[in-house]
Formats: sequence, structure tokens, C-alpha cells
Amino acid sequence: MTVAFKQQSADRLQESLALVQRLIERQRQLEDLVSRPEVSEPPTDPLAPHYNLEALRLKLEQLHPADVAHILEALPLEDRLLVWDQVDGARDGAILLEVSDAVRESLIEVMEHGELVNAAEQLDADELAELAPDMPRQVVYEVMGGLDEEERAQLQSALSYDEDKVGALMDFDLVKIRADVSCEVVLRYLRRFDELPAHTDKIFVIDDLGLLKGVLSIRKLLVSDPDALVAEVMATELVSFSPDEDAADAALAFERYDLITAPVVDEAGKLIGRLTVDEMVDVIREESDSEVLNLAGLKEEEDLFAPVIDSVKNRWAWLAINLCTAFVASRVIGVFEHSISQLVALAALMPIVAGIGGNSGNQTITMIVRALAMGQMQLSQAWRLWRKELRVSMINGVLWGGVIGSVAWLLYGSFSLGLVMLGAMLLNLMLAATMGVLIPCLMQRSGRDPALGSSVLITACTDSGGFFIFLGLATLFLL
Amino acid sequence: MTVAFKQQSADRLQESLALVQRLIERQRQLEDLVSRPEVSEPPTDPLAPHYNLEALRLKLEQLHPADVAHILEALPLEDRLLVWDQVDGARDGAILLEVSDAVRESLIEVMEHGELVNAAEQLDADELAELAPDMPRQVVYEVMGGLDEEERAQLQSALSYDEDKVGALMDFDLVKIRADVSCEVVLRYLRRFDELPAHTDKIFVIDDLGLLKGVLSIRKLLVSDPDALVAEVMATELVSFSPDEDAADAALAFERYDLITAPVVDEAGKLIGRLTVDEMVDVIREESDSEVLNLAGLKEEEDLFAPVIDSVKNRWAWLAINLCTAFVASRVIGVFEHSISQLVALAALMPIVAGIGGNSGNQTITMIVRALAMGQMQLSQAWRLWRKELRVSMINGVLWGGVIGSVAWLLYGSFSLGLVMLGAMLLNLMLAATMGVLIPCLMQRSGRDPALGSSVLITACTDSGGFFIFLGLATLFLL
Repeated sequence: MTVAFKQQSADRLQESLALVQRLIERQRQLEDLVSRPEVSEPPTDPLAPHYNLEALRLKLEQLHPADVAHILEALPLEDRLLVWDQVDGARDGAILLEVSDAVRESLIEVMEHGELVNAAEQLDADELAELAPDMPRQVVYEVMGGLDEEERAQLQSALSYDEDKVGALMDFDLVKIRADVSCEVVLRYLRRFDELPAHTDKIFVIDDLGLLKGVLSIRKLLVSDPDALVAEVMATELVSFSPDEDAADAALAFERYDLITAPVVDEAGKLIGRLTVDEMVDVIREESDSEVLNLAGLKEEEDLFAPVIDSVKNRWAWLAINLCTAFVASRVIGVFEHSISQLVALAALMPIVAGIGGNSGNQTITMIVRALAMGQMQLSQAWRLWRKELRVSMINGVLWGGVIGSVAWLLYGSFSLGLVMLGAMLLNLMLAATMGVLIPCLMQRSGRDPALGSSVLITACTDSGGFFIFLGLATLFLL
Repeated sequence: MTVAFKQQSADRLQESLALVQRLIERQRQLEDLVSRPEVSEPPTDPLAPHYNLEALRLKLEQLHPADVAHILEALPLEDRLLVWDQVDGARDGAILLEVSDAVRESLIEVMEHGELVNAAEQLDADELAELAPDMPRQVVYEVMGGLDEEERAQLQSALSYDEDKVGALMDFDLVKIRADVSCEVVLRYLRRFDELPAHTDKIFVIDDLGLLKGVLSIRKLLVSDPDALVAEVMATELVSFSPDEDAADAALAFERYDLITAPVVDEAGKLIGRLTVDEMVDVIREESDSEVLNLAGLKEEEDLFAPVIDSVKNRWAWLAINLCTAFVASRVIGVFEHSISQLVALAALMPIVAGIGGNSGNQTITMIVRALAMGQMQLSQAWRLWRKELRVSMINGVLWGGVIGSVAWLLYGSFSLGLVMLGAMLLNLMLAATMGVLIPCLMQRSGRDPALGSSVLITACTDSGGFFIFLGLATLFLL
């Protein structure tokens, strides 16, 4: 018996990627040699490109769909399509599910109608629902026609929810039993399956009307007396979700209670599906990705090798907003042009005041946004936290304002310029602390996502505010 | 039979928190009334505070340890300690495991030696290893003395790994069997357990020497013929980890292959523990948290109600770095003070050039850092991606440079000032694209984490570079 451990999986995956890249390169060389027989001596075997492709196909066959997806994502478009052509059509659906949205689009674009129908037909209703928005409408209709009534109802139900709701992520492949049978009967019933649904850690107990009565965990089933009734060993205290709950909230609950699967029930308490931890892990990953991407001013995850024009489109919105706020800040400076012309040192010092305000404001707003998102802070505590942040900013203001004020004093030989610098730093940091608490609380209160654009807003405040405070103080006291 | 569904868990948790807060407030009022009997008429029952605390204790008893942890995190220090006092000592350990590092510190600080030993003694070796770094050394020694030899070896092994390695996160509570028994025997063996370890989705098959031979998934066991031998139905193709692999890589593998548990083996192939998905979810969450916190310039997750001085300490490092880079940028402006004194409009326009460069550079660097972290990009592709990013930045440069150049032309009535603005925007965006690719690639090459501080570095480049380019061009062509 041989044991084939896939150890050090990250390294293994990189090796697979490197091998695929070598095979692609060799393919291009071989095709080139065969098409120009005059350059190679002895002439290359005309079948060599064919054998090389075969090697690529075999390599891909051995890989997990998720690994093939990873390789597709790491390749430039023309190489990606060459690899995609070598993937067994029977695995197209599974791989399309795994790739990122941007790469999925690039693959679906080159696939023919028949291929797409073929790929979609291999999928369960819940998987199909995940792909459907990216598929040509005609393909979805055609596949839908081939489903049985129950599956079609499931697909339509899944499609009726926003993609960030529990209903859009639930799956329908689950094991149901009645409460009045014995564990022995359950074990015999399970043995009739060819395979249990993925991630089955519990069996759902329902009544004649389909209402959820409890869950029987497999761990419990395995240690229970075979004669015990399901009703005696099942759990009735359980975490369930409704289909229109936010997926992010469900993911937090999975994290908090260490769940593997959980039932989804409708308002009447009827079992309509289940959530599995692998989907929730994806939700957590996507949430954190979009947080980081938003912070950096990107609309969404970009295909690394996207055409230039797609990248421009993905990035322009935040750049435009940034430009507007920078323009406002610039006009604030414009108001004080007379002061700057009298004391040019102001022009050199003003970005320091604005910069440290932005940095400090971002620290505060990040704290508050996270606390609101995790439900660790209520709006009623805003007042208390504002006072705390204000104290932190005052210490920082005196500390760093003192440092940079002294430097300005030494550099320009003006004690009062140093004092203005200190005062401006202190006031701008206090402004940053105030807006850092106020902005996310106002956004939360008006029902908006406090994370979206908060970094841009705080920087706009600390830039314009910083320039105004510093140049204003300088105009009052120095000129 | 009553079914107690914990539906809408996010709302339920907020309700629990609100109730606890009301009980705390009432407790303070009651204590106040009892201590000053003269103010209330009729006098308050002296036992009222006692009954109120009892209600709090009962409420806490009904909550999952993770929920108690959440409530503790959401309370200011004095309220947190009041609640902590009412928690059943037998649950202290489980709750300490769930709270954030900062809050854990605040709780351990007020606990007495005996309480800590008590709390630690309830934990498994792997859980104890997680708490040990925060515990007083004396407590750890005392608890260690009470462990049996196997547990002590496990604890020492877990403590010997860095906290971001697989070895530090693995757990030792797993079910092992031999390959030469039948499924029937396995089922009978399992029935002898009172309870199977949490998250048991597979049983590990080992030989006499403890070498891992394969895994028997519970799903497979349940559908197999009872007479079949384990060797026939177990899987030998499996993902395993070594204890000194990065936990983040392991988490990516869990995500990629949808794992619930996976074996950890040493170099010889001996089974030494297992990883479970709940730990991996925590790793994913922590990774993304530290990414966001680093981007915002925070050293680590902060207790929302931390003393002001702790907050200052957590935040000062990045503020200091920011101040240094801002100072450099300020000196660049200082070099051109003569130009600014001749054309004050430059002072107002220069932050726009620097700002958009920083925004665009952050977009590029975020893309590259993420691609490197996910293993989707090799350094060999840097050249290709640089050319792409350069093209994106040139389009943006001409576009937004044209817009803001025209505005400058209209505003200041100088066509050549508008041209300088356009040229400076274009060049600074190209600089941003170049440094956005170069910085993370150089960091990766020198074995550093490309994410750490990348945002600060790129902003430093685009600020200083932007001021230099704009003021330099203006000095050359306008004066």
C-alpha cells in the first residue's frame, strides 16, 4: 500500500504551477519548430506538440479543481486559455466554481454554448445558482429545462436572494430523518447512500410537515445506544439561520460557535437548506478582501492579468473621489496664498500637519469601524469613546507637535513658528479623533456600511482641516 | 418537546449584551441606594443588590463561552470585571480562550493565583499552550506538574513552536485505529467513547510505530459494508501538514480543499496531532485583521476600552514613521521655497499631485502584495506586470492630469501651469506604478513580509517624488 501524502501543500502547488508554465513554454517552442521545419536539424517530430499537450492534460487531471483554478488565475490570458482547453470538460463546472470572478468571466467568454450547458449540467442547484449570474441567460434557461421540479424550485429560490444573503449561499444536499426511529434504523438508512453529502456532521430531524425538530450530530449517533430513539439523543438547542439573514452575520456565528453545518429554516420553521463551513470561510475571506481593497481604493478584486482598460475602469472611481477631495484641500490653501507668499516656510510645513492628522484619523476610524462591524460597540458608547480618543490625540499632539515644532523652530529660527506648528498639530489630531468617531457612527446610524469610503472621508477632513488650521493660525499669529 | 432555536444569532447576542448592561447599571444604582438608606423611601431591601447579581449570574450561565467573551470585550474595564466576577469559575478557562488578547490580559491581571490554576486545569494541552504565554510563569509550572506524562509532552511540544506555526495550533484530541480491522469493529470501538472529539470528521489510521497510513472519513465509514476492512475503505491520498509549516499556508489549504480536519505528521511520517477548521478560521480572521490594522498604522488589535496610555503605545510607532517620511517630503518642498515664493499657486497645487500619486500607488501595491501572498504571482512576472501597471498609470495620468491641468489653467489663467500640472501628474503616477511593483517584489526577495509597511513606503515615495517632480518641472519651465 502506498501512501501519497500531499504534504507542504503550498510548495506542491507552486511546483505544479511551475511545471504547467514550463509545458506551456515548451508548447510554444515546439509549435514554432514544427511550423518552420527549416530551422531545426534534425527536423522536429510533427507530433511533438501533440505529446506535449497530452502531458499537460495528464498533469491537470491529477490536480484538485481548486488547484487548477489557482493555476488559471496565475497565468496571463493566452496561456490561461491554452490550459483551459486541456481541462477535461467534465471538470469545467467544478473549476468555474473555484476561480475568481474576473477569471471566471474570461473563461466563460471563450466557451461555446454547448460547452457551457455541459459544464452547468454537472452542478447541483446551489452551485448553479452561484454561477448563473455570470452565465449567458440562454444557457441558464436550457439547463433549467433539464432539472426536475424540486431542483428547479431550489434553483429559483437560491436565485431570488441577494448574493450576500444566507439564502443565496445555502445548499440543498442534506440528510433528513424522523424523530421516532431508533439510532440503529438511522445507521441502516445511512448505509443505503452511495455517499453522504459533503461536510455532513449532523442529520436534520423533521416532522411530517417538514418542520425542523432538532439535529442529530453524527458524533452523537456514533456513541449512542443503537436502540435509543432519535428524539432522545438529538439536540434541540441549536443555531439556525433564516434565508434573508446577512451572510456575514452567519459567518460570524459559525466562527463564534465553531459550526461545521447549520440548518436554514423559513419563518414557519420549515427546513429549507443548510449552510456549510466552507462557504462561510469564503464569506470571511471575501469580506476581509473587500475591506482591504476598499481601503486601497479598488472597487473589486482584479484579475492580475486583466486588460489595461479593465484595470483603469476598476480603479477610476476612487481616484476621482480622491481628486475631488484633494481639489478642495487645494482651494483651502488657495485662500491663504497671501500668507504663504509672505512666509514660504508655511508651504513646506503644511503637509506634515495634514499627513500626521490623516494617519492618526485612520487609526481611530479603523478601530471604530471594526468595533461596530463586530457588534462590540453600540452607538450609545460613542460619547465615551470620543473622550478617550480625544485624550489619546492630545497626548500625541503635544508629543509629536512638540518634536516637529522644535525642529521647525531650529530650522527656521522662529520660536513662534514652532508654537504655531505645535498648536496646529494638536488641533488637527483632535479634529482627526472627533471625525474618526463621528463619521462611522453617522454612517451606521443612517444604515450605511461604516467601512465604505471611511478612509477617504477622514483623509479629506484631516487634509482640508489641517491646511486650514495651520495656515489660519499662522496668518493670525505670525503675519 | 420544546425546540429552542437560537435564530438570528447576531440579534440575540446584542439583546444579551443589552440585558447585561441593564443589570450592571441597576447593580450600581442598588448598591448606591443600599449604602445611603436616607435617600430612598421606603428603604431599599439590603439584599436587592445580591438578587440582582444572582440574575446576572444566571443570564451568564445560559450563554455560550464565546458569547460571554463577546460581552466582556464590549464592556468598559470596571463593568467587565464586575461581570467576570459573576462567571462560574469552571468556565473561566473556556472564556479566556475566546476573548481577544488585550481583554485576556486585563482579566488575568485581576485573577488570583488559585483562580488561574483552577482555570488552566480545565483545559486540554493544546488549549493550555494557547493561554500559557499570557499566564504568570508560576501558574503554568504548577498546572504542568498536575499533567500526566503524555499531556506534558504534548504541552511542551506545542509551546516549542512559534504561534504562527502549525505546531502551535494543532490539537491532540483525536481518534486513532489500525488498518487491519473491519468497519464493524471501528463502529463498536467508537461506541465505547462517551463523546468523540470535537470536529471529528475522520479517524486516523496508524501502524504499530504510530506512522500515519491513511484516514477513514466518518462519511465513508457510515456508508461502507460493516465487514469491509479499514485498509480497503480508507483514503491514502490526503493533505497533511508538518508542524513547522506556516499556519497561514495551512489555512489557505483548508480553504482550497474544503477541509474540516487534517493530520499533522513529523518528518518520519508519525502522526503527532491534527488541525481543525475552527482554528484555521481564526487564523484567516487574524491574518485579515492584522492586514487591515497594519494598513491603518496600528500595531495590533486594541481593547476598545484600553487605558489611554496603552492606546498611545499601540499607535506611536506608525505615527513616528509617518512623521519621518512627512519630514523628508517637507524638506523636498524646502529646496524649492524660492520657486514657491515666485509663484504661490504652486503651494496650492502640489498636494493634488502628491495625493493622487499616493492613492494610485496604493492601488498597485495592494494588487501586487495580495498576488504575492496568495502565491498567484512569481517574481519572474514582475517585469510583465510593471509594464501593465505603467500603461494603466499613463492612461490615468493623461486623463486626470488633463482634467486637473485644465482646471489649473482656468483658475490661474496660465496655460503653461496647466501643462506642468499635466506632466507632473503623469510622471508621479508612473513613479507610483513603478514603486508599487518594485517595493513588494524587493521585500519578498529579501524574505520579508511584503505587506508590512508597504503602504507607508509607497506614500513616502509618491509624496516626496510628487513634490519634487511638480516643483522641479515648474522651476524648469515656468520661472
